[in-house]
Amino acid sequence: MQRRKFLKAAAGGTVGAAALAAPAIAQGRMDMVIVSTWNRDFPGLGTSAQRCAARIEELTEGRIAVQYFAAGERVGAFDSFDEVASGNAQAYIGCDYYWKGKHPGWAPFTAVPFGLVYTEMDAWMKFGGGQELLHKLGDEFGIVGFPCGNTGLQMGGWFNKEINSPEDLKGLKMRIPGLGGDVMAKVGASPVSLPGGQIYENLISGAIDATEWVGPWNDYFLKLYEAAKYYYWPGFHEPASQVDIGINASWWATVPEQDKKLIMVACAEENAMQPAETNYQNGIYLNRLINEYGVELREFNDDVYEAFGAASEEVIMETRDHSPLAAEIVDSYLEARKNVGVWTNYSDAPYIAKRNRFLDI
Amino acid sequence: MQRRKFLKAAAGGTVGAAALAAPAIAQGRMDMVIVSTWNRDFPGLGTSAQRCAARIEELTEGRIAVQYFAAGERVGAFDSFDEVASGNAQAYIGCDYYWKGKHPGWAPFTAVPFGLVYTEMDAWMKFGGGQELLHKLGDEFGIVGFPCGNTGLQMGGWFNKEINSPEDLKGLKMRIPGLGGDVMAKVGASPVSLPGGQIYENLISGAIDATEWVGPWNDYFLKLYEAAKYYYWPGFHEPASQVDIGINASWWATVPEQDKKLIMVACAEENAMQPAETNYQNGIYLNRLINEYGVELREFNDDVYEAFGAASEEVIMETRDHSPLAAEIVDSYLEARKNVGVWTNYSDAPYIAKRNRFLDI
Repeated sequence: MQRRKFLKAAAGGTVGAAALAAPAIAQGRMDMVIVSTWNRDFPGLGTSAQRCAARIEELTEGRIAVQYFAAGERVGAFDSFDEVASGNAQAYIGCDYYWKGKHPGWAPFTAVPFGLVYTEMDAWMKFGGGQELLHKLGDEFGIVGFPCGNTGLQMGGWFNKEINSPEDLKGLKMRIPGLGGDVMAKVGASPVSLPGGQIYENLISGAIDATEWVGPWNDYFLKLYEAAKYYYWPGFHEPASQVDIGINASWWATVPEQDKKLIMVACAEENAMQPAETNYQNGIYLNRLINEYGVELREFNDDVYEAFGAASEEVIMETRDHSPLAAEIVDSYLEARKNVGVWTNYSDAPYIAKRNRFLDI
Repeated sequence: MQRRKFLKAAAGGTVGAAALAAPAIAQGRMDMVIVSTWNRDFPGLGTSAQRCAARIEELTEGRIAVQYFAAGERVGAFDSFDEVASGNAQAYIGCDYYWKGKHPGWAPFTAVPFGLVYTEMDAWMKFGGGQELLHKLGDEFGIVGFPCGNTGLQMGGWFNKEINSPEDLKGLKMRIPGLGGDVMAKVGASPVSLPGGQIYENLISGAIDATEWVGPWNDYFLKLYEAAKYYYWPGFHEPASQVDIGINASWWATVPEQDKKLIMVACAEENAMQPAETNYQNGIYLNRLINEYGVELREFNDDVYEAFGAASEEVIMETRDHSPLAAEIVDSYLEARKNVGVWTNYSDAPYIAKRNRFLDI
């Protein structure tokens, strides 16, 4: 698939989708250019987005002819939204919190500090009103969105300093973007934003004291275990990182009903496939980090976690204060956290704790 | 949908699928009779199976013409497997542990005491070799199986007696079927099997001291809160109850490739839809049970849980001892429990505990 996609990408890059659209429709085929916020083969994210794109073409038997462009192959990652909203491309795959500068209501559709884990998020999206609110927000930008992936809870990050109290967070230079960074600023740290490729050298040189990235599977490939002493858990900043597809609404209106259904079901399938893959691989790579690389795991204690919690609630409320629609989204999200959250108190979380203690896992 | 399905069911019941099959194929349509182990509108199970059946017909644009029969409408729930293996019906939807008398290897494809939760189960099925082993086991019976639902972790059950030590389990008359029942027998209880409709009266009369059923959503509709004092958590016996579709292999071989893909993706979609619905509704109904009905929640303490754990491991090993294939399935399942289980120690479970404590959820 990769070589074929590369050729497609090269063609798409020079010819452009608009020029191709008319003849393609004449043959009963529609071109769907998908731009992504991920590097092509980034494990779990780049590979998942490609799988979703290929699956749309497969399920529609090629009636929807997909051209997939990874970050930088057509536009930069953070230009994906504008590329689609303008109609230059038909869809993006990425994390919607990247667009929180356009509207903070996008953030809860990826992750919120102290927010929902994957199973809660999926319950909210499918049965708690989340999908309807994603459509309502998308309407303001000409975007039709659906979930198409989730990388689950992130690790707390890699630290070269022990964090034993909220005092230890003061002045800490940490690479942590988004709302998680806003929380770290509130507790006195100095959040910085760095692309993945520059994290290792900055951690080695001491330019930063700490970084978060994703989880054991992804962190392993960045060799962060060589650059930092302690691997902290559990992360508070992205308890479930949902990936969404955002489709140009005008184009979507021209897609035949059956192909709409097939695009949606391909996304629904990938939305469960990616967490299954991430959970499986995180287990494998966490064992490797511990047993082969001697990584030292550290738990954030209750004092530190309460400081994160208090700051997180402030950040969520600032998001809420933006506008009536942001308030509607945040209120619905927090309602799900409260309702489904009660069930999580009595189900998987305590069961896993008891099971793993007994089995010494 | 319901009336249409009822009419179909009535027609199928008198005319029979075999008589219809030949003309249907001549028109480029294939009949797919699905029998289910669930009552028609049983919340979360009956409704999910119907949704999956309808979705197969919808995604194939009616090329696969589905006739859905709930338990008892064509054959009894426990005759579903034979109905499909014999070719009288094309597929069943149900829990594969019902067929453990035919081969104990079926049990891990639904649930095992002290086994995998939903996210771990899905990781095993999709990336840890579970799906391949389901095919290998199915080959022995002419069945092609795929997951198409999951109701997640069950509550520990409704008790009219407090369970403060393993001693309190001795002689306890509890309605609990399957491997969970085998575990209860090992700890000295007297497990009994009763259909859903008879649980309430037996609990009220004192004929049984305790029962498990499913979780807050389903238990609410059985009014078990009227019949028992304490609602125990977390359940150990079914940490994730996966629902599978089992398709007649000879029929499957005749299905066009594209329609095979569409049937599979409909099942994959429902496999994530049902847990989302169950988690959402369990949250709502657990709140209702606590706040409106004053249900007293009780946690199984560590001594009791360790007794369950020790007996569960014996039951799993008895399943393993049956045959080389049973051993292959159990070993693969336990490998996933160990690998993915390590990740669960540091991710959703501790995060939820810390988040909910801080937020007082």
